[in-house]
Amino acid sequence: MIQIIAITSDNKRKTMKSIDEVLDGDYQWWWIDFNNPTDEEVKQLDTKLHFHQLAIEDCILGQQRPKMDYYDDFSLIVTHTIGPVSFDQHEINVFIGDQFIVTFHKDDVPEVNQVWNMAIKQEDMKDWDIYRIFYEILDKVVDHYFPIIYQLEDSINLVEDNPEELSMNVLLEQLFELRHELLKLRHAINPIRDLVYRILNSSHLQGIEDRREYFADIYDHLLKLSEMVDSNREITNDIRDNFISLNSYQQNKVIQVLTVITSIFAPLTFIAGIYGMNFVNMPELEWHYGYYIILALMFVLSLAMIMWFIKRGWFG
Amino acid sequence: MIQIIAITSDNKRKTMKSIDEVLDGDYQWWWIDFNNPTDEEVKQLDTKLHFHQLAIEDCILGQQRPKMDYYDDFSLIVTHTIGPVSFDQHEINVFIGDQFIVTFHKDDVPEVNQVWNMAIKQEDMKDWDIYRIFYEILDKVVDHYFPIIYQLEDSINLVEDNPEELSMNVLLEQLFELRHELLKLRHAINPIRDLVYRILNSSHLQGIEDRREYFADIYDHLLKLSEMVDSNREITNDIRDNFISLNSYQQNKVIQVLTVITSIFAPLTFIAGIYGMNFVNMPELEWHYGYYIILALMFVLSLAMIMWFIKRGWFG
Amino acid sequence: MIQIIAITSDNKRKTMKSIDEVLDGDYQWWWIDFNNPTDEEVKQLDTKLHFHQLAIEDCILGQQRPKMDYYDDFSLIVTHTIGPVSFDQHEINVFIGDQFIVTFHKDDVPEVNQVWNMAIKQEDMKDWDIYRIFYEILDKVVDHYFPIIYQLEDSINLVEDNPEELSMNVLLEQLFELRHELLKLRHAINPIRDLVYRILNSSHLQGIEDRREYFADIYDHLLKLSEMVDSNREITNDIRDNFISLNSYQQNKVIQVLTVITSIFAPLTFIAGIYGMNFVNMPELEWHYGYYIILALMFVLSLAMIMWFIKRGWFG
Amino acid sequence: MIQIIAITSDNKRKTMKSIDEVLDGDYQWWWIDFNNPTDEEVKQLDTKLHFHQLAIEDCILGQQRPKMDYYDDFSLIVTHTIGPVSFDQHEINVFIGDQFIVTFHKDDVPEVNQVWNMAIKQEDMKDWDIYRIFYEILDKVVDHYFPIIYQLEDSINLVEDNPEELSMNVLLEQLFELRHELLKLRHAINPIRDLVYRILNSSHLQGIEDRREYFADIYDHLLKLSEMVDSNREITNDIRDNFISLNSYQQNKVIQVLTVITSIFAPLTFIAGIYGMNFVNMPELEWHYGYYIILALMFVLSLAMIMWFIKRGWFG
Amino acid sequence: MIQIIAITSDNKRKTMKSIDEVLDGDYQWWWIDFNNPTDEEVKQLDTKLHFHQLAIEDCILGQQRPKMDYYDDFSLIVTHTIGPVSFDQHEINVFIGDQFIVTFHKDDVPEVNQVWNMAIKQEDMKDWDIYRIFYEILDKVVDHYFPIIYQLEDSINLVEDNPEELSMNVLLEQLFELRHELLKLRHAINPIRDLVYRILNSSHLQGIEDRREYFADIYDHLLKLSEMVDSNREITNDIRDNFISLNSYQQNKVIQVLTVITSIFAPLTFIAGIYGMNFVNMPELEWHYGYYIILALMFVLSLAMIMWFIKRGWFG
Ligand SMILES: [Mg+2]
Ligand SMILES: [Mg+2]
Ligand SMILES: [Mg+2]
Ligand SMILES: [Mg+2]
Ligand SMILES: [Mg+2]
Ligand SMILES: [Mg+2]
Ligand SMILES: [Mg+2]
Ligand SMILES: [Mg+2]
Ligand SMILES: [Mg+2]
Ligand SMILES: [Mg+2]
Ligand SMILES: [Mg+2]
Ligand SMILES: [Mg+2]
Ligand SMILES: [Mg+2]
Ligand SMILES: [Mg+2]
Ligand SMILES: [Mg+2]
Ligand SMILES: [Mg+2]
Ligand SMILES: [Mg+2]
Ligand SMILES: [Mg+2]
Ligand SMILES: [Mg+2]
Ligand SMILES: [Mg+2]
Ligand SMILES: [Mg+2]
Ligand SMILES: [Mg+2]
Ligand SMILES: [Mg+2]
Ligand SMILES: [Mg+2]
Ligand SMILES: [Mg+2]
Ligand SMILES: [Mg+2]
Ligand SMILES: [Mg+2]
Ligand SMILES: [Mg+2]
Ligand SMILES: [Mg+2]
Ligand SMILES: [Mg+2]
Ligand SMILES: [Mg+2]
Repeated sequence: MIQIIAITSDNKRKTMKSIDEVLDGDYQWWWIDFNNPTDEEVKQLDTKLHFHQLAIEDCILGQQRPKMDYYDDFSLIVTHTIGPVSFDQHEINVFIGDQFIVTFHKDDVPEVNQVWNMAIKQEDMKDWDIYRIFYEILDKVVDHYFPIIYQLEDSINLVEDNPEELSMNVLLEQLFELRHELLKLRHAINPIRDLVYRILNSSHLQGIEDRREYFADIYDHLLKLSEMVDSNREITNDIRDNFISLNSYQQNKVIQVLTVITSIFAPLTFIAGIYGMNFVNMPELEWHYGYYIILALMFVLSLAMIMWFIKRGWFG
Repeated sequence: MIQIIAITSDNKRKTMKSIDEVLDGDYQWWWIDFNNPTDEEVKQLDTKLHFHQLAIEDCILGQQRPKMDYYDDFSLIVTHTIGPVSFDQHEINVFIGDQFIVTFHKDDVPEVNQVWNMAIKQEDMKDWDIYRIFYEILDKVVDHYFPIIYQLEDSINLVEDNPEELSMNVLLEQLFELRHELLKLRHAINPIRDLVYRILNSSHLQGIEDRREYFADIYDHLLKLSEMVDSNREITNDIRDNFISLNSYQQNKVIQVLTVITSIFAPLTFIAGIYGMNFVNMPELEWHYGYYIILALMFVLSLAMIMWFIKRGWFG
Repeated sequence: MIQIIAITSDNKRKTMKSIDEVLDGDYQWWWIDFNNPTDEEVKQLDTKLHFHQLAIEDCILGQQRPKMDYYDDFSLIVTHTIGPVSFDQHEINVFIGDQFIVTFHKDDVPEVNQVWNMAIKQEDMKDWDIYRIFYEILDKVVDHYFPIIYQLEDSINLVEDNPEELSMNVLLEQLFELRHELLKLRHAINPIRDLVYRILNSSHLQGIEDRREYFADIYDHLLKLSEMVDSNREITNDIRDNFISLNSYQQNKVIQVLTVITSIFAPLTFIAGIYGMNFVNMPELEWHYGYYIILALMFVLSLAMIMWFIKRGWFG
Repeated sequence: MIQIIAITSDNKRKTMKSIDEVLDGDYQWWWIDFNNPTDEEVKQLDTKLHFHQLAIEDCILGQQRPKMDYYDDFSLIVTHTIGPVSFDQHEINVFIGDQFIVTFHKDDVPEVNQVWNMAIKQEDMKDWDIYRIFYEILDKVVDHYFPIIYQLEDSINLVEDNPEELSMNVLLEQLFELRHELLKLRHAINPIRDLVYRILNSSHLQGIEDRREYFADIYDHLLKLSEMVDSNREITNDIRDNFISLNSYQQNKVIQVLTVITSIFAPLTFIAGIYGMNFVNMPELEWHYGYYIILALMFVLSLAMIMWFIKRGWFG
Repeated sequence: MIQIIAITSDNKRKTMKSIDEVLDGDYQWWWIDFNNPTDEEVKQLDTKLHFHQLAIEDCILGQQRPKMDYYDDFSLIVTHTIGPVSFDQHEINVFIGDQFIVTFHKDDVPEVNQVWNMAIKQEDMKDWDIYRIFYEILDKVVDHYFPIIYQLEDSINLVEDNPEELSMNVLLEQLFELRHELLKLRHAINPIRDLVYRILNSSHLQGIEDRREYFADIYDHLLKLSEMVDSNREITNDIRDNFISLNSYQQNKVIQVLTVITSIFAPLTFIAGIYGMNFVNMPELEWHYGYYIILALMFVLSLAMIMWFIKRGWFG
């Protein structure tokens, strides 16, 4: 679907659906939104808007890194959004020229819709221009990363505190997933951060200069996001190392129990085995107190063993 | 609560509570402190002081990184303090203009109170100006990080020396907490460090030039703090690796004990089992010295085993 | 084999096999391709084309990193391709002068063949020049890295999901191989990335300026490739750490089973051993309910043991 | 104690103890050494020499990083020495002005004493000036780090070779200490290295220019020291990883022994247990060769077990 | 030993042994080689050639990092070679002035000898000058690192493939040695790489400009060497991690065998122990089929156990 907002020289807003209409008219500036466009509509990037072949290719193929490319009469900016639950990544391509902004996205992305609705609800468009549209979209894109990281932080805390007392292999599996998602976030956020840094320092986008504070504010958020991702990766690192350490500590304890039990009963069972032998000539068997002497001996022996293990700290 | 200090052209200090009063008067410079302000008071940032909307947003929302933003007629500096026990983070926002300094903090922070009391006790204000106020606050903020790190270092030493002989899983839990707190400290200190570096090299804050040595001294402390945090993180790393190594070494020893005990008694118990069988025709059972021969055999066998284990170094 | 395309001043294309022919003729520009050349043909780099001795050495010896060297009247660019299955690395050496491009490769590489066929099929050569040839080759080289990484990503997913339920040592072996291949890819891709960055910013290759967008597009792909390699190395890292953690967790479980079994049966077997002794005077043996009392004792004892282990969570 | 060397205009050396005397006299340049000064003496930094308050604070408080601060009429340089056995760190503060060098240290440091004695023994002072004094002190400070690292390298080699056959937990404890000391060294050496780099490139210390080679030589040594520390940290890393690997390998071997022993004797002991049962009707017990048949069976069974373990490589 | 080549103004070569002779003569340029010099010969660096005291110190003491120092009338370049088997490091010091090159090395190094022999065999010296000598030596030094790395790569492959089926502790020991040698190589190669980079960009060595391609070729090789070392360190890292993982996996398997054996035989042996007790009143003992019933019970029990273990995957 193609949607167009065009602003007249006296700041009136018109909406239309045909690119020809806006190009033929006499407008101050216009915004063309390609939302999940048909193949026919995609072709108009070339036939009507005459964008460079490489820029159009980037739009169609997708799988670009967030980036900014300068062409003779426009700049192409590619940025990414991430869906809150599925972690699906969507691309938004923005063409900025002297009089136009063109947004192109294969999926229906809420960030662009929000800005569209803001613009439509405006009574007067005199505070708006191309760069205002661009700022609002970028601002929404970046803001939407925060709830995603907060959600991941909650999940990390759940793994750390483990209120449902899940077993360690389940926790490790969850941790692995969380790390994977943090990695995806890092590969989405850091290039956008570097992109906004370039936008701030670019001489090609003259309209930025008047809105410097606004784009600097977005850059601020991206720095914060980038630090949160790094910090959370490091925390998951620590949690996993902690799990492994604790597991190893518990294993040590279990093996100590095994060794204590074995060390106490192996000699006792051996002694009982000796007097269970059927030799004809075993004088102790006929002693009147033989049985009691042996029981006492076993008792003393096991006591000595236990003392030794207590001294070694294996009864902790 | 809003508190104001205003300085007259002959360096006299007046205190007041109304922003209108200071703006209408004829003062050399003034300091407005928003300490845990009410919603009504917060609105005056906009209605009376006419700060930029983005700057006011940063104050109200909080959760900013330490940073410095330049606006047309003022600069906004955001810095963090950390409470000594709870590790709670508080934000201090400082607006600096030609004639004013405005501090804004949602919590009652001791660093600002100390400077307020210093200023109030001063007989003559001729050595003071806006940048002196700013320097004193920043100096207190940075100085307060030192006892926090010293306290963490003491805790790390306690974990390493373990005078209360806590078990290893408790120590690992403590170490994990300490690492987490060091991480928080790093994410507080390093951005302040970078911020002070920018302040030192900023051309927007002209009053810094006359107090260069003072701000350089703060920067020095931040470098020292940053190194202490990194160094302590690395030490906790080493302590944990050491714990894991020692745990693994001890486990080895325990398993050796288990193996030695099993290896000695398994064959002996087996031999006793053989002569405990009830076959009718077992000639050894009827030998006169059968019992003694078997006992001797067992003795020799266990001796040989022990020798072999001693040779292998398993009796260390 | 030596193949030559030469373009006349009216953009006609001629193909020939002799270097003398092209040098003696009056052509606008020409492309000489040394494809798996004989020793005789290699010598013509020196005798006919008079390239610098060091440049010729690099071609003949191979084992160069991807790089660009400037000589007085030409530039030498070395780049690598990697075969899809064998991971064999091949070198393509490209000499670029004012009127010529010379490609030299010891193996028959598909990337050059594709461009050759493109050029041959062209009706009119007026859109082509030396840098177009160079761009097309480089573009093919870089594009061919994508399927290789996709293939590695599929293999990594197979190791992670393990649908064939292979044992962990087989998976670890596969992971080790995958990491090795990722390392090889990194050492191929990163230098090419840095090389294209240099080409983009080089003042020696004047023809680049007109095709800036095209080479920037290649650079973009190389950034993407480089990030994919790094990201996949990190994922293999996480997978291996996960395997090790899970292995250690399972071992813990196995040892708990061993300890539980041993702890229950060692005391029971010892008690049975006691009443298997052959002492003449053992009053319990003659009690009418002695046997049942002992059986009950054993039952209670094992129940107590099991309760204790359940409380410890060893029956998870 | 305060010691002073003052040089007259004809390069004669005078020594004195009173700062007033040197300031009132007519000297070319002078060196004032505060060696472990009393509180009274410390005050003279302010009352007599009029240094900046922040510089004096740095001296008195200590705990500074190695650094250089520029003030209006002098520079303050802080550097560290480390004692050879105790690893105690001492600070040397050096004030350099147009006509004076002032050294301030709370402890009696051998590096300064050596230079003092060199200067005192000199017949003619015409080759000496303020920067010569400074160079000689810095040179001694840096040279004294070498024997400390050599000593650590010897200790690391002792841990690696383990000639006294200490147990692994003792070695790990030693390694941990060595790593800690290397960390301390790094935090002493790297800032001095960066400081000397700044001194070499400073425009504030004009006397450096004439002695460039000398200070570059010190910088060289600091680069070497820094690399030695990093390299040794990496080696201790490898040693510890090696210890852990070997420990894990040995544990594997011990557990194999345990498993072999258990696997052989558990079935044998079970069989013996069967024929130790007291059932009235057990025909095998009455067979004439029953006992021998069972012994043979046991022999065959244990042989089969041993074969299986040999095949599995557990008898390595 | 001191050897001298001196070139006359008509490019004739003379060889001599006395420094006086070359300095007194009228030569275009000369090369003085100090090969393992006597103390007497070393003194001539000062008395005859008047080099700076610090430069001479560096030669005599050795233990320098590869580096380049500028003095008023010459530059000193220090570089390292490594012997192929022993990994002994040797230093070559090169002094370059307007008319002379002086090489100084305490050991007889093949790299210098090769260049000497090349120069001696030359018929005409008109293509040679000071920088040609320097280039040839540096080229040999760098080329000699390649076989050393190839040899290490072979050793690493041997450890990985383990054709002699060495035990893991032997392999780990070898790996540790290999890592140590790679570390030594890195500390030799990286500073030389940085040194050649500085040489390429130095304005002090004017003769470099004419041979830029040659020194760039050396730099190329050093980049390649540096990457090979880093890559091989990373591969040894992976090999060791793989060993540890496999060891841990095998241990898991061994412990499973132990647990299975114990779990099967512990209950069986206990049951046999029960019916080996000597109570007077044990009715089962007198049942006609008691023995067979118990045997059947044991069979069923062990079968159930085995089924459970198979289900758990412990018979893999
Ligand atoms: Mg980052
Ligand atoms: Mg970061
Ligand atoms: Mg960041
Ligand atoms: Mg960070
Ligand atoms: Mg970490
Ligand atoms: Mg960690
Ligand atoms: Mg830091
Ligand atoms: Mg630092
Ligand atoms: Mg550091
Ligand atoms: Mg750091
Ligand atoms: Mg470390
Ligand atoms: Mg570590
Ligand atoms: Mg690399
Ligand atoms: Mg990369
Ligand atoms: Mg990267
Ligand atoms: Mg990257
Ligand atoms: Mg990672
Ligand atoms: Mg790792
Ligand atoms: Mg990882
Ligand atoms: Mg790790
Ligand atoms: Mg370093
Ligand atoms: Mg270094
Ligand atoms: Mg290094
Ligand atoms: Mg390092
Ligand atoms: Mg390492
Ligand atoms: Mg390591
Ligand atoms: Mg490197
Ligand atoms: Mg590298
Ligand atoms: Mg490199
Ligand atoms: Mg790695
Ligand atoms: Mg690794």
